[in-house]
Amino acid sequence: MIIVLKPNATKKQVDHVIARIKELGLKPMVSKGTERTIIGVIGPEDVLRVQPLEVVPGVEKVMPVLKPYKLVSREFTPEPTIVDVRGVKIGGKAVVFMAGPCSVESREMLSDIAKSVKHAGAQILRGGAFKPRSSPYSFQGLGEEGLKYLREAADATGLRVVTEILDVRDLQLLERYTDMIQVGARNMQNFELLKEVGQSKKPILLKRGLSATITEFLLAAEYILSQGNFNVVLCERGIRTFETLTRFTLDLNAVPIIKQLSHLPVVVDPSHGTGSWEWVLPMARAGIAAGADGLIIEVHPNPEIAKSDGPQSLLPKKFTTLVNEVQRIAAVVGRA
Amino acid sequence: MIIVLKPNATKKQVDHVIARIKELGLKPMVSKGTERTIIGVIGPEDVLRVQPLEVVPGVEKVMPVLKPYKLVSREFTPEPTIVDVRGVKIGGKAVVFMAGPCSVESREMLSDIAKSVKHAGAQILRGGAFKPRSSPYSFQGLGEEGLKYLREAADATGLRVVTEILDVRDLQLLERYTDMIQVGARNMQNFELLKEVGQSKKPILLKRGLSATITEFLLAAEYILSQGNFNVVLCERGIRTFETLTRFTLDLNAVPIIKQLSHLPVVVDPSHGTGSWEWVLPMARAGIAAGADGLIIEVHPNPEIAKSDGPQSLLPKKFTTLVNEVQRIAAVVGRA
Amino acid sequence: MIIVLKPNATKKQVDHVIARIKELGLKPMVSKGTERTIIGVIGPEDVLRVQPLEVVPGVEKVMPVLKPYKLVSREFTPEPTIVDVRGVKIGGKAVVFMAGPCSVESREMLSDIAKSVKHAGAQILRGGAFKPRSSPYSFQGLGEEGLKYLREAADATGLRVVTEILDVRDLQLLERYTDMIQVGARNMQNFELLKEVGQSKKPILLKRGLSATITEFLLAAEYILSQGNFNVVLCERGIRTFETLTRFTLDLNAVPIIKQLSHLPVVVDPSHGTGSWEWVLPMARAGIAAGADGLIIEVHPNPEIAKSDGPQSLLPKKFTTLVNEVQRIAAVVGRA
Amino acid sequence: MIIVLKPNATKKQVDHVIARIKELGLKPMVSKGTERTIIGVIGPEDVLRVQPLEVVPGVEKVMPVLKPYKLVSREFTPEPTIVDVRGVKIGGKAVVFMAGPCSVESREMLSDIAKSVKHAGAQILRGGAFKPRSSPYSFQGLGEEGLKYLREAADATGLRVVTEILDVRDLQLLERYTDMIQVGARNMQNFELLKEVGQSKKPILLKRGLSATITEFLLAAEYILSQGNFNVVLCERGIRTFETLTRFTLDLNAVPIIKQLSHLPVVVDPSHGTGSWEWVLPMARAGIAAGADGLIIEVHPNPEIAKSDGPQSLLPKKFTTLVNEVQRIAAVVGRA
Repeated sequence: MIIVLKPNATKKQVDHVIARIKELGLKPMVSKGTERTIIGVIGPEDVLRVQPLEVVPGVEKVMPVLKPYKLVSREFTPEPTIVDVRGVKIGGKAVVFMAGPCSVESREMLSDIAKSVKHAGAQILRGGAFKPRSSPYSFQGLGEEGLKYLREAADATGLRVVTEILDVRDLQLLERYTDMIQVGARNMQNFELLKEVGQSKKPILLKRGLSATITEFLLAAEYILSQGNFNVVLCERGIRTFETLTRFTLDLNAVPIIKQLSHLPVVVDPSHGTGSWEWVLPMARAGIAAGADGLIIEVHPNPEIAKSDGPQSLLPKKFTTLVNEVQRIAAVVGRA
Repeated sequence: MIIVLKPNATKKQVDHVIARIKELGLKPMVSKGTERTIIGVIGPEDVLRVQPLEVVPGVEKVMPVLKPYKLVSREFTPEPTIVDVRGVKIGGKAVVFMAGPCSVESREMLSDIAKSVKHAGAQILRGGAFKPRSSPYSFQGLGEEGLKYLREAADATGLRVVTEILDVRDLQLLERYTDMIQVGARNMQNFELLKEVGQSKKPILLKRGLSATITEFLLAAEYILSQGNFNVVLCERGIRTFETLTRFTLDLNAVPIIKQLSHLPVVVDPSHGTGSWEWVLPMARAGIAAGADGLIIEVHPNPEIAKSDGPQSLLPKKFTTLVNEVQRIAAVVGRA
Repeated sequence: MIIVLKPNATKKQVDHVIARIKELGLKPMVSKGTERTIIGVIGPEDVLRVQPLEVVPGVEKVMPVLKPYKLVSREFTPEPTIVDVRGVKIGGKAVVFMAGPCSVESREMLSDIAKSVKHAGAQILRGGAFKPRSSPYSFQGLGEEGLKYLREAADATGLRVVTEILDVRDLQLLERYTDMIQVGARNMQNFELLKEVGQSKKPILLKRGLSATITEFLLAAEYILSQGNFNVVLCERGIRTFETLTRFTLDLNAVPIIKQLSHLPVVVDPSHGTGSWEWVLPMARAGIAAGADGLIIEVHPNPEIAKSDGPQSLLPKKFTTLVNEVQRIAAVVGRA
Repeated sequence: MIIVLKPNATKKQVDHVIARIKELGLKPMVSKGTERTIIGVIGPEDVLRVQPLEVVPGVEKVMPVLKPYKLVSREFTPEPTIVDVRGVKIGGKAVVFMAGPCSVESREMLSDIAKSVKHAGAQILRGGAFKPRSSPYSFQGLGEEGLKYLREAADATGLRVVTEILDVRDLQLLERYTDMIQVGARNMQNFELLKEVGQSKKPILLKRGLSATITEFLLAAEYILSQGNFNVVLCERGIRTFETLTRFTLDLNAVPIIKQLSHLPVVVDPSHGTGSWEWVLPMARAGIAAGADGLIIEVHPNPEIAKSDGPQSLLPKKFTTLVNEVQRIAAVVGRA
């Protein structure tokens, strides 16, 4: 059983609910988020089912535990959630384009890419300042310097910024520079990081783990929501299979399924999902045709010398073509 | 090295080429198809590379062995192949719809479905008379009776028929009743069956194996072409992964990749690729957006009592919706 | 419900049972094997449950359908089955070694290998005369010539022969030359082939498909048993996963699981299961430690020039080491 | 190129090497570990290859970058590494047993289990105080209280303690209570955590990620070694595949492969690798037969009421049987 308190519930009200739960011989697990408090109830739920807890002052909703995830489920929120990234809405009618280089490599490069992708129609600039690399000897990102360049380039062009967090200790640093925080595929079950960003007021872009089932993906999002941060966008970016021609297998089945099971927005990353720029455009079209709310695309002016993910990065002019083709698909599926 | 002879090459010309290969100390592997003869050459190819074999009478093409597959490759045939199923063209501009029940269950049922899917816009009727079932105790199909019903229902409505072959000994039987022969996923590496249908003049619908890489899929098609039957349509129908919410993971990445590597048409099966009717429509749209030449969809008037694959079968009226939505996608990707 | 008739049931008895089933409004599916008749019953089983069918003359056993597979299950036969390959017992106390080249390449080579592996302790000679190859241009085997060499080499050394069947039309040919017939991984769901070998009196070595679940593997064996051939040995030979350093992932978990679920013997193929000779020995030890009844190992006197599977073939002297090390493991798990 | 400095290299020597690298136009990446300093060199290595850097004072070894991982490779250290966990040696002749409950649940329970597993022959007590759980509503562990119980139970019985770290901020806390720190499968590519434990003097037990290739697994270990902590034990605990009867597929192929590629010790976790207590014993035997240096086993006195992983936990008396049977395997593979 999950008890969600109203955003304006007073401390007294919260304490009253907790006391009530204990009286019934159950164990309350309290998550005090920045926006609201959520109480998980452990114990024989039958006791609770007959209690009119929903009428207790401060309580917004009481949910039985039928699915493993609660707050992310359609049962909890039947209407689709629209996540607001400083004015850019993800999950509404319009398709959202996030674009930029894999890694922030230099101020000039980023400034140029930001202008191109803005011009092409992107609303959000992506780029890694802290990079999760399989090898400790690969380029690890520019760190805070990279964050500054991202902020600068975004502000100069009117874009929003999304960038990845790797370390729970970096949250405040990232909050200073970015509009949306990405939790990458390799950290999808880094539960401490999920809890940490669940405390943030910034919207979160959560990428599916390489071998995460859809249920585990939704449970990872549940960690964030259970801390009070309801602004989560899910990203399908390919799963690991036996196929070797592609870097990953983009699992577009996940798009309609998540849309059915959850109210959260879903975007697709065809750059990682294929691993080769040649297949990014058709898979971007396919993602939107499957019902995704947006795309995140790697763009680089000179992929051959990119410090990471060159082979899957689009040239800026190809990104322009992509936006145009995708918008035509968006139109026929009622998205524009 | 592969030597492809002209369709009208005489026996004398073929014998001359073979003799020439042996003179050079190499071993010819001769495939005499119904339409043309193909000779694989085993041995140190360097000897052959300096020989002007292409000017020998009867020789159409000499191909070095760089990729594991030859005849299916874009290098061999740069232009896309259009497969003609008794007048229905697969691989041309228009998107082709194949639809029908998983199994042929009765004459009446099939007649009804044929009318509905024809009315909705399908050109080819699908349905299994011989069913490959995991369990020996599951319904195995009506056999020849089922083939008759397929032919009848197709002729009554002007549809073409595609149905699956399970046994090499059934080829002639199937040829009598059907317009296109399907080799199912579980037989994708049944090489004897591939060779057998390679001898047929009927077009072949080859489904990707559950754990076949794209390279192996193309090699399976190569078996058919190497016997002289160049009318092969490839079908992506989902691969086996760790995900359990879906029956398979529809690998739409395969569509643009196969289009790049091969000249053969590609269709998508979102019914098997998802395993649930609820996700068939969005994945059908996605398949065409990714560049597929057609779709194969399971349709049943009463999925709850279907003898196989009920959960993934669409009601006829939902199939009508699907055709309409897919056609709008097709239009914006230049397919109609 | 499965009704197994006694081996000596008369035609009259069988007809009586069938009539009885029809009277009850159910549909009998009759499999007349060479040794016994088995009747699957389709329909509402409740009707049957209250009928004392087990006392009807000729009936050996009546089994409810709780698991998808019946005849292969431990419930059907609690005691382990011992398969007799012309005197060599698989599934008994002693561990059985099958060894030989991937393909039969020449009479001399095979004769030499047969002597080596016999000397090392093998009881059964393996070797392919018909080879399932991903590419139509790869060596396809010597055919009947290869079968003759196998028989010759086995008879000269006192070994038994196991070789693979690819084509239902080859059954009689194989029966003439071999003591055990292998159904390969790629044909594990070639149901027509399973039914065909189910009609044979020869024992069958059934290899697990590349992406077959253990349940599907047991169902494939069920196809063979349902035709009356109860002499089936199962072979774990590696499944397809994302790992690329190995050719396949040898799933030794399958050994104790199959032993628990089924009465059939299980052998392990570490040659295919690893793809490299360097890892064959430790995985052979591991297979027997996990509880397998035997091993099938590729041995070649000159792996570098082998026509297939050279990298995973052991030199004869390494095979001798393997037998010795494995026998020491066998001893401590009570197998010798 | 990797330059490993001697443990006793002075600051002056280190600075000299760095200066030398810069002079050559290359970029040094300096990792100052607690025990030694390691310098990665980025840039055109040819320049470096002709420089006699190995004679520079303070330099222990200069390694070219042929494989993606360096410090963990057999080329770097041909002799097997023996990791010393406060006197318990992992990677030497004797097989090491780590055992205990999935989660620390109470002081009494842990005390009892510690006594049983010590008596049975275990040397290291395992147990989670911080638990990575798919659901935020599952039991998350007792935290520091759990660490205290672990320490107490271990000290009372003479066992060592291994427990999992989830949060980089907990390193000092864990170092106070534990003898070995585990990085779990879900954090195998949590690179910040790897770097953090790379700074510790405690030995690390690194578990393979659910979908990590062996190469990625070794690269994750490389992160730890590159920070100066060379005391790493690798643990194969099963990978994610399509098989559903088991929780994971224990990939024992990884054991001989890692032993060949790396000098680090390898242990096997058959509890997670199968997901069911019934298959733990045979797979424990198989793991040692494949060449593993030890086992980590979940043991619980009352699996039915365990707060996590009950189904895969052994009863204490079954663990005793396991130790006995495994020791007999160990003996015949030269491990005791």
